[in-house]
Amino acid sequence: MSDIIDTLWLDDKTNVVYFIDQTKLPKELVVKSTINLDDMYRAIANLEVRGAPAIGVFAALSMYVLSVRINGATLGDFVSEYMRCSNHLESARPTAVNLSWALGEMKKELNRFTMHRFDCGIDGKLLDNITLDDTLRGNLAYVLKKKALTIWENDINVCKAIGENGLQFIHDGDGILTHCNAGRLATVRYGTATSPIYLAHEKGMQIKVFCDETRPLLQGARLTAYELMESGIDTTLQCDNMVASLMASGQINAVFVGCDRVSANGDVANKIGTSGVAIIAKHYNIPVYVCAPTSSIDMSIATGEDIVIEQRNGSEVTKMWYNSEMSHKNVKVYNPAFDVTSHELITAIITEKGVA
Amino acid sequence: MSDIIDTLWLDDKTNVVYFIDQTKLPKELVVKSTINLDDMYRAIANLEVRGAPAIGVFAALSMYVLSVRINGATLGDFVSEYMRCSNHLESARPTAVNLSWALGEMKKELNRFTMHRFDCGIDGKLLDNITLDDTLRGNLAYVLKKKALTIWENDINVCKAIGENGLQFIHDGDGILTHCNAGRLATVRYGTATSPIYLAHEKGMQIKVFCDETRPLLQGARLTAYELMESGIDTTLQCDNMVASLMASGQINAVFVGCDRVSANGDVANKIGTSGVAIIAKHYNIPVYVCAPTSSIDMSIATGEDIVIEQRNGSEVTKMWYNSEMSHKNVKVYNPAFDVTSHELITAIITEKGVA
Repeated sequence: MSDIIDTLWLDDKTNVVYFIDQTKLPKELVVKSTINLDDMYRAIANLEVRGAPAIGVFAALSMYVLSVRINGATLGDFVSEYMRCSNHLESARPTAVNLSWALGEMKKELNRFTMHRFDCGIDGKLLDNITLDDTLRGNLAYVLKKKALTIWENDINVCKAIGENGLQFIHDGDGILTHCNAGRLATVRYGTATSPIYLAHEKGMQIKVFCDETRPLLQGARLTAYELMESGIDTTLQCDNMVASLMASGQINAVFVGCDRVSANGDVANKIGTSGVAIIAKHYNIPVYVCAPTSSIDMSIATGEDIVIEQRNGSEVTKMWYNSEMSHKNVKVYNPAFDVTSHELITAIITEKGVA
Repeated sequence: MSDIIDTLWLDDKTNVVYFIDQTKLPKELVVKSTINLDDMYRAIANLEVRGAPAIGVFAALSMYVLSVRINGATLGDFVSEYMRCSNHLESARPTAVNLSWALGEMKKELNRFTMHRFDCGIDGKLLDNITLDDTLRGNLAYVLKKKALTIWENDINVCKAIGENGLQFIHDGDGILTHCNAGRLATVRYGTATSPIYLAHEKGMQIKVFCDETRPLLQGARLTAYELMESGIDTTLQCDNMVASLMASGQINAVFVGCDRVSANGDVANKIGTSGVAIIAKHYNIPVYVCAPTSSIDMSIATGEDIVIEQRNGSEVTKMWYNSEMSHKNVKVYNPAFDVTSHELITAIITEKGVA
């Protein structure tokens, strides 16, 4: 990974998408390339590409790569094949907000282009009368590529800005605790919670990062610890239940976490375990920083209590990683994907636009 | 397990020790029997018998079972073979306090018996002059069996008394959270933290018990959830990082945990993660009860800060249960076996003699 800057990128000479296959981590670093709808669908569905921002960017780049290979006699053929691909990709993870958002942004661009040039809707029959010649192909490729790369670059810029805004909260010699993976592997580059950490490391600060393994899916162990190690950062892994012991030992100066959604009053929904970390941090007077793009702030949700928390399959806890079942075969399992951390426990929310 | 009352017991007609092989749980319930030193050593060393109290009782019963099969012409032969077996068993887990304690109690009994009858030390040459006839064999068997069964019964009685003293803190309909295994599988019967739970269940109270899986060794998932399920108690398993979410949801009325050591000021050393649970419980105003035999109280230790915490191998976190390594191969791991919970976070310590 040391030579690889990004989690996913476009080779714009060959029009191929490259991505790190995250299902192979932490055992080996496998970079895959794709120009094929089935491969792209599988990459998203099988979590080869994961992390909300990364999935969205991957879908945008994928739609551009697919679009330059669409055959057809008319613009109508093009649009219809484009929409078939887009709808199929979207169905790979129906609940991933960033996936439908990015596909929607690309679709809007295509719609705007056809409207502008031909004054008709993309569903209109008129499109069938327009020959798909090389000039039209070139123009379509130009606008879709530009939009896809804008989405890609914007992800990098937002993460970098979060890092710059968060850097003030890191001091030389700090021990930093993080939970789950809000790292570069979840985005294109830098990550959210890891962005201030990477920038501090780039500036030569000596920092030690402690990663919660983050049960049940172990994103901290598999992904965060991996990417920090590959970046040459002093990294320690611990089980989630060791946070209080670590904080009591004086090794932690600050907590940096990402988040999935921020409600209007500043309550934060993030990976299960975050609220426990924040409560323990408060007990030990350790600041908790939540790093999030402003797109995560949902003003339509008044407080954290209004956020519906997904309950996931119990087999993630009892079977998924093990050689054998790890509990009684009939035991009930409590397995929420997220929890809500009260705004009272959060020192600051760090966004690309500033610190709240 | 439903038909099996105890974790280990003596068949005093055949002089055989029976025990549940805990390495086979939760997949299958295997009861093993033994009359053989090598098997006994292996049972302790390989954690087939685990849990501090259970190991001690197992060693006491084992020494009796071995003693009735010792051949020899003189009492000197008997004592020398007895001591060889006892020392070998003790080396199976050198740091297990209860193991050396129970072997010491048995040894004291043998010493007292030889002193009393023959007025000489067990190391004295005089023992070689005393023929090991059937009468002497019978008397040796009588005192060693009586002592071993006293140790066994005392474990049951202490656990039951803890349960009776703790029962007042459980109410019909309560949700109870527990961490690690301070259950019947760690003792002969009842357990410590689970004892009030089993007694409440026997009285027909409707209670729900939530078990932390307890990383890295998963004693909560493998053992506590298993034994509670087999006893017909409404049992739910959760990852350690879900405690705050559970408590926020209002499902937990009390926390019951065991402990390894209590210092003079009431600080408690117990399985890693206990102090985090206690901090989160305090945040939600949920009482925390520590169940411990008075033998765990160590007045020679002033506060929890004086308790030395064992750091264990990082591979327990990154490899032990998994099909493949679960983090970067070179990552540092923080893996303390225990943590210290401040007395300020503990509502009460429940012992066999009363409530502190």
